[in-house]
Amino acid sequence: MHRIPRVLRGAVGGSRSRTAAYQTRRASTSGIEPRPNNIGDGIGSETAKAVQLPSCRSAPYLRRTHTCKSLSGSDVDKKVTVAGWIQPKRRATRNISCYNLKDGLGEIQLVVWGDASDPLQAMMDAIPTQSAIVAEGVLKLRHINQKRDYPNGDIEILLKSVQVINPADRNLPLMPHDIHNLANEKVRLRHRYLDLRRTELANNIRKRSEVAHLVRTILHEHDFAEVETPMLLKSSPEGAREFIVPTRLSTSAPDSTSLNDDQSPGVNTESASTPRFYALPQSPQQPKQLLVISGVVDRYYQLARCFRDEDGRKDRQPEFTQLDLEMAWVSWGESNGSRPEPEGATEPHGTWRMGGSEVRVIVETLVRRIWSRFEATELPGQFRVMTYDTAMSRYGSDKPDLRFGLEIQDITQLMSDSVRQALAERDEMVEAWILPMGSAVQFMRGARRVLLQGDSKLERIKVANDNDGTWLSRSRVLRGILGIDSEGPMDCPNVNSVLDLNDGGVVFLSRRQRKPEGGSTALGRIRIEVANMAQSMGDLGLSSEPQFLWVTEFPLFTRADADKEFLAHGRWSSTHHPFTAPMWEDIEKMYEGKIEEVRGQHYDLVLNGVEIGGGSVRVHDPAMQEHIFENILRLTDQEKATFDHLRQALRSGAPPHGGFAFGFDRLMAILCKAESIRDVIVFPKTGAGADPLFKSPAPVDPSVLAQYGIRPQRLS
Amino acid sequence: MHRIPRVLRGAVGGSRSRTAAYQTRRASTSGIEPRPNNIGDGIGSETAKAVQLPSCRSAPYLRRTHTCKSLSGSDVDKKVTVAGWIQPKRRATRNISCYNLKDGLGEIQLVVWGDASDPLQAMMDAIPTQSAIVAEGVLKLRHINQKRDYPNGDIEILLKSVQVINPADRNLPLMPHDIHNLANEKVRLRHRYLDLRRTELANNIRKRSEVAHLVRTILHEHDFAEVETPMLLKSSPEGAREFIVPTRLSTSAPDSTSLNDDQSPGVNTESASTPRFYALPQSPQQPKQLLVISGVVDRYYQLARCFRDEDGRKDRQPEFTQLDLEMAWVSWGESNGSRPEPEGATEPHGTWRMGGSEVRVIVETLVRRIWSRFEATELPGQFRVMTYDTAMSRYGSDKPDLRFGLEIQDITQLMSDSVRQALAERDEMVEAWILPMGSAVQFMRGARRVLLQGDSKLERIKVANDNDGTWLSRSRVLRGILGIDSEGPMDCPNVNSVLDLNDGGVVFLSRRQRKPEGGSTALGRIRIEVANMAQSMGDLGLSSEPQFLWVTEFPLFTRADADKEFLAHGRWSSTHHPFTAPMWEDIEKMYEGKIEEVRGQHYDLVLNGVEIGGGSVRVHDPAMQEHIFENILRLTDQEKATFDHLRQALRSGAPPHGGFAFGFDRLMAILCKAESIRDVIVFPKTGAGADPLFKSPAPVDPSVLAQYGIRPQRLS
Repeated sequence: MHRIPRVLRGAVGGSRSRTAAYQTRRASTSGIEPRPNNIGDGIGSETAKAVQLPSCRSAPYLRRTHTCKSLSGSDVDKKVTVAGWIQPKRRATRNISCYNLKDGLGEIQLVVWGDASDPLQAMMDAIPTQSAIVAEGVLKLRHINQKRDYPNGDIEILLKSVQVINPADRNLPLMPHDIHNLANEKVRLRHRYLDLRRTELANNIRKRSEVAHLVRTILHEHDFAEVETPMLLKSSPEGAREFIVPTRLSTSAPDSTSLNDDQSPGVNTESASTPRFYALPQSPQQPKQLLVISGVVDRYYQLARCFRDEDGRKDRQPEFTQLDLEMAWVSWGESNGSRPEPEGATEPHGTWRMGGSEVRVIVETLVRRIWSRFEATELPGQFRVMTYDTAMSRYGSDKPDLRFGLEIQDITQLMSDSVRQALAERDEMVEAWILPMGSAVQFMRGARRVLLQGDSKLERIKVANDNDGTWLSRSRVLRGILGIDSEGPMDCPNVNSVLDLNDGGVVFLSRRQRKPEGGSTALGRIRIEVANMAQSMGDLGLSSEPQFLWVTEFPLFTRADADKEFLAHGRWSSTHHPFTAPMWEDIEKMYEGKIEEVRGQHYDLVLNGVEIGGGSVRVHDPAMQEHIFENILRLTDQEKATFDHLRQALRSGAPPHGGFAFGFDRLMAILCKAESIRDVIVFPKTGAGADPLFKSPAPVDPSVLAQYGIRPQRLS
Repeated sequence: MHRIPRVLRGAVGGSRSRTAAYQTRRASTSGIEPRPNNIGDGIGSETAKAVQLPSCRSAPYLRRTHTCKSLSGSDVDKKVTVAGWIQPKRRATRNISCYNLKDGLGEIQLVVWGDASDPLQAMMDAIPTQSAIVAEGVLKLRHINQKRDYPNGDIEILLKSVQVINPADRNLPLMPHDIHNLANEKVRLRHRYLDLRRTELANNIRKRSEVAHLVRTILHEHDFAEVETPMLLKSSPEGAREFIVPTRLSTSAPDSTSLNDDQSPGVNTESASTPRFYALPQSPQQPKQLLVISGVVDRYYQLARCFRDEDGRKDRQPEFTQLDLEMAWVSWGESNGSRPEPEGATEPHGTWRMGGSEVRVIVETLVRRIWSRFEATELPGQFRVMTYDTAMSRYGSDKPDLRFGLEIQDITQLMSDSVRQALAERDEMVEAWILPMGSAVQFMRGARRVLLQGDSKLERIKVANDNDGTWLSRSRVLRGILGIDSEGPMDCPNVNSVLDLNDGGVVFLSRRQRKPEGGSTALGRIRIEVANMAQSMGDLGLSSEPQFLWVTEFPLFTRADADKEFLAHGRWSSTHHPFTAPMWEDIEKMYEGKIEEVRGQHYDLVLNGVEIGGGSVRVHDPAMQEHIFENILRLTDQEKATFDHLRQALRSGAPPHGGFAFGFDRLMAILCKAESIRDVIVFPKTGAGADPLFKSPAPVDPSVLAQYGIRPQRLS
């Protein structure tokens, strides 16, 4: 006796009950148009009461004639067959009921005429929501009262028959059509295959594909070539934040064929049982530089998967996608040198004074064309440019949000001589972020709530009638400069006029090192925090006009990056990476050891206060690269060895080159108005790096680990 | 005193000697056209003897006006500036010398007028080959005698000045222009950044980008969406051949934010110090099925990186690229069932009797358009189709090379009754591969040399005057059937006429199980081996007409795959993967336990005897999938758990679906006429998985491993 599980009987094409049903169907339609409300294949019984849902159909079925997207008013009165997922009954009178059918490209309304005793009606009622069905019927224009302003809102299918292809479980873990009652994100991630059936999420994923293809098409038009760089790369000595990939020891076994016994020189001295590892790339930085140096392509791009193993932070993913590009023969700026940036850079565009203008042009082209097509917004021919120093002074941020003004002001010059002298001795300054009563009502509630967290160099002062002549001299921050008890003449007679505080307002005061460091200042953080609070309280509505901005001329080296200190151990770090070129006007300073004065040819692209990408012109001079490794970053030989191939390549006639990388997930989240990048990634991981759908990461059996020459540190 | 390394003096923009040189240049050209043979920036001296090569230039330089590719006869007599790598001097008279300049897109000839004492000539002589330069000059038509039939073979640049941007080392490890004296592959892989400057290799890489973009464009035209599936996936219980990726233990630390404390249920019971792993995908099979089941896209594709950690085999890479696609609502074949394949399938196209014809159409569309554009070949509207059984009987291979005929023949019917009976009892057959003297001279030398390796069921017989009446009865293989000493009447009177051996020839005889198994038979292997030998000896020239073929209706399950036995431990294995659907006509047999008779809806696309891709219609019935897992493959619960998400997804209204995957590296190797897929991968690894350029894989410090909770098995 063969063993067909009971549940399967009747399910398979060849079993008797199904075959009979098919034949009924075939007989009824052979050469004859189905009658209205003809009973489809799925109906195994003649009476509504006895409707029994057929099980899954693994056999030939009606071929669809149209996707939902391809239907239109021009098909009216045609017989059409569509396939998709049945949605809940939407509208019903005693004799009419409506169901949406949804496929991977759209939706269409199915209409069934007939009361509950009608077999087709009974069948439709019996099919669980989200089942896969094929529906056959006649396309009709909707009644004028039923027309809606969404795709296919003007048409519907008068259902003639239905085939149930795969009935869904009645108790699905979540119902993607029930958008007003969404399951929590954990549940939705665990059952992502269902959540993806939700229209909003599906639209994001499809838009991602369209944006990617537009980007590729533009880049090919501009002579870029897409090149796939390795994902199994070399691990760096510290291995910070990278994923390592053990490989089976067989690779070190001797082998007779010519290229199979090739051992990488670095591991020749290791015993055969020393486990060996690749590393997944955090970005294709080195491969792409090698590519452009080699000349295999003049202009490279790649939608590149990158990997970072780090503590879960909100909205980070262990794997993410960069739109990565690199160009040979980028400029190194203009020979007339770096003029000081004009005063009052409210001038329309600012000045791009570095090299890499070719990169700027292609990046702006990409963004303009994406915004034109997907946002119906025509962006300016060139985006605004601002140096890092200007951005930090005026907005306290290296990614200023320009959707609102309220710049930070340097008020050092308003101080008394003794205060200014004391500040100068410490190389410090005093700045203020001011919310005048009149012009910034929308920020006031936020300003009152923001927390200062006991920073002794930071202060909030409410200026009103009772203190408008004394607030400056009573400032805790300013008094702290000369010693807590001193009462220096700090007040400036016309300070309230200068600062637009005649009607009162709120002042945030901060004392800081004159040379900005890192990504933000105290007042910059407050400016954003207050704006966010104002937005969330409904006080501030920001313009939907996107504010793109290039931030340029970053310091090339830093000691202020806590993230990098982990590797630097007190040495200088590269602000971005060690391949970024200095501005050519600063090269002499670099060799003279004035490290902190050297500006790099780095550029970040900022949109509404969010960094959406960055890049730089690279060092192409092998001696300069060596100087940076050796004399500035003071790399150990082992650290330097990681860059051997690049150092060699620079000696083979490397052309000037530079590039850029967009954070593609972030860009898509912006284009999709999504709150999280998880909403634009088809199978995302949680902030902790867990994948609730595929259930990774997971333990691996020690016997498997042994094949890689490794074992758990503590055996359980 | 600042510390500029000696070698750098003069290299940087701001140093005195360089500045002077720039100013000379600027003065000489300001407003004045350069005189012929004007000395360019790079020349620091007035006399040829004292030419000193400038070091690397990290400062503004002349902007190129053209890439080599963009130059054309229409620019004649224009002043142009190009940038690229200087190639060796190609042609010289006393007063003229020529150099090619190569950039990432093409080449152009530079011509220098002037004898060795001329400063520009001396400068050009001093620049090391492969240095990066900028050349300024006037575009000229070549003299009629100098015109050549390659790109830019009709034009040249009369050089006016040159800027050396980055001089190459004089002793480069390999010279990419010296194509007649290539370094060995090990050296070339180690210095890939130079080898990639070789035109042939560079063309391959650029063609790869163009093919990929064409493929994407076609698929978008057909409503496919590209979706990036995860690379950090779940490891399978045995972990055979997959790469695992340990992740830092911090991911298991508790975290307060809502999605950061989400632990995958499978690991809840593990202690916090149990190391946990992702796995890299061997293909995106499960994610892509989930995608199409979810309905997020109706048609999915991806150029997907895949990973396989296995013993180095020739021309395999641990990371490789698939053009992967999947479609919802593919057909399940025709209702009239599976007619037997017509006799004599030399009929033009054969019959596609399975489902998935939608996949066939898009795959053929892709191939036709690639071949049309890149091979200037118009392929037939439909490719030929052959069942696995037919392919195995006629060609002894599941990927027959149809560029030559010489089919294998079943000669069982020529045997005497007793032999036939003995064969039937063992379910065996006798087949012959025959090279008649007249028609297959080109195979003879190869046929004589092929080694049979002592297989007792395989035999080579030369038929000539001395044995043309007796060869069959004396056959060792045939006599073995009835016992070694028997002398059964095995001869057939007109055997030589039937087999076209009247003029003699060579016969390979083989006895085998009637039901074919695996990828080839003994005679199939010999057929290919002899053809390869004939080709390499110059005896056989195959038509360049590509022979595409679909091989269909594979057995769904196998016990004959040694590779799979590793995991199967004596159980049935899926011939391809456990998600492949049976042909619907065979479903009943499957439930009846006639496992070996069940054919799958699997299709391979074969080109000239090479499998370039494959795919199938998948199981969408959750009960059928369960039956396959449980009752046929007899998976353990742990093995089954790997497929949990898929099993759940099938219960949520999964539509019929099917797909395909091209081996993109292999496809590109064919299009580039490359011998190895290494020639179409920009940074390939050796057969043993080593990367001689990036020097991976490499040991990792135990302190780093400890962060992942692992350690080397043997501490050194």
